[in-house]
Amino acid sequence: MNLLLLEPEELATDGVVRLSGRRAQHAREVLRVAVGQPLRVGVWRGAIGTGEVVSSDGDSLVLHVALTEPPPRRPGVDVLLALPRPKALKKVIPSLSALGVDRVVLLNAARVEKSYFDSKVLAPDSLGGLVRLGLEQARDTCPPEILIRERFRPFVEDELAAMFPGGQRLIAHPTAQRSVREVAGAGERRLLVAIGPEGGWVPFELELLGAQGFEGFSLGARILRVETAVPYVLGALVGGRG
Amino acid sequence: MNLLLLEPEELATDGVVRLSGRRAQHAREVLRVAVGQPLRVGVWRGAIGTGEVVSSDGDSLVLHVALTEPPPRRPGVDVLLALPRPKALKKVIPSLSALGVDRVVLLNAARVEKSYFDSKVLAPDSLGGLVRLGLEQARDTCPPEILIRERFRPFVEDELAAMFPGGQRLIAHPTAQRSVREVAGAGERRLLVAIGPEGGWVPFELELLGAQGFEGFSLGARILRVETAVPYVLGALVGGRG
Repeated sequence: MNLLLLEPEELATDGVVRLSGRRAQHAREVLRVAVGQPLRVGVWRGAIGTGEVVSSDGDSLVLHVALTEPPPRRPGVDVLLALPRPKALKKVIPSLSALGVDRVVLLNAARVEKSYFDSKVLAPDSLGGLVRLGLEQARDTCPPEILIRERFRPFVEDELAAMFPGGQRLIAHPTAQRSVREVAGAGERRLLVAIGPEGGWVPFELELLGAQGFEGFSLGARILRVETAVPYVLGALVGGRG
Repeated sequence: MNLLLLEPEELATDGVVRLSGRRAQHAREVLRVAVGQPLRVGVWRGAIGTGEVVSSDGDSLVLHVALTEPPPRRPGVDVLLALPRPKALKKVIPSLSALGVDRVVLLNAARVEKSYFDSKVLAPDSLGGLVRLGLEQARDTCPPEILIRERFRPFVEDELAAMFPGGQRLIAHPTAQRSVREVAGAGERRLLVAIGPEGGWVPFELELLGAQGFEGFSLGARILRVETAVPYVLGALVGGRG
């Protein structure tokens, strides 16, 4: 935990915060806080700063908070992700959250196993917890919005255009002819990136996404696990913007 | 497993291979092979191609192999990595291997816990198995060389220059002034990238690496887990070369 995330209502007008439970415990046991020590804090969807430890007794942690900076800048990216197996999803959601992706659509595809949509990992509380882990890791306060779409075609044909107006649309596909360098926009255009299942998209899916303006790009012949592919693709497309 | 990796001595001159154990079992149980079916195969440090299933009985799998292509091209990158905690290392080694990194130095640093060097994950058989997982995933046959260096200063001052002659040397550091775009070489120069512990390098380490020509770059204010940082950094630096 590199940032202690506070709810806006936890912060009194005098900047004092009283915490108990998971965050107080983490501060005591992992960060081994002492009175007077500054911790990195941030307010959910708000600013970040420091919280000086006023007291730490039993299960209670009291901080005096000064919010001084905006959260880290965002790369301006949304991701359309073929729903990975639950074990991989547990790693990918914190990673997408840490990387500052604004919106994630977990989408069905021909090569996604139906049963993945029944996973407990997709429950709102579970996804919320994974998002929070990513924010605490990256010192961010703004969560990505996560949507689940179990029907590929209705989403792509009826919803996608209105949900992601404008911007560039790219699709990672091993047999695409163009490299990242050839498709990557020079500038600050918003980006929507589609990342397929490990077995790839099927021709029908490529066609439907193509009809919505997705341009294919290839990262070479290597097939990557989704946990590796997601940060690698985002690094390639927007890592240079940092 | 997207590639069945063969040892050169397993391949008879007539192209026939007889397998048993883990690979035969995986082919039967996960890939559910049938006679006549082509599997992707590759020879350790050699070419890749297809192996047609001649028979699959009991614990034995017989393939007729045709090697037709070189393994995927390599990005020309070596990585100096502050040794991560064992759990993270287990994810990072397959990832580095899948991404085609040529050489990985697992290095001590002030913010690396001493005990990490006693981990069983660092045993040669363990590292070898993790490397193999990455190659089977990425359809590659050429393993990275992995070196373990428990003393930072002697490695950096006495070994590094001879081990990595020429090429560009970069160091990821959150407070560096320059972005990836400003440091990334346009072309096909070899790259040695230093990736620090999650807590960052200490000033002494930055100084010593700076003296060896490492140029700092920042990926922004977000602090990433090593499992996310490694593919993100490699994507940003060489993903465009794909």
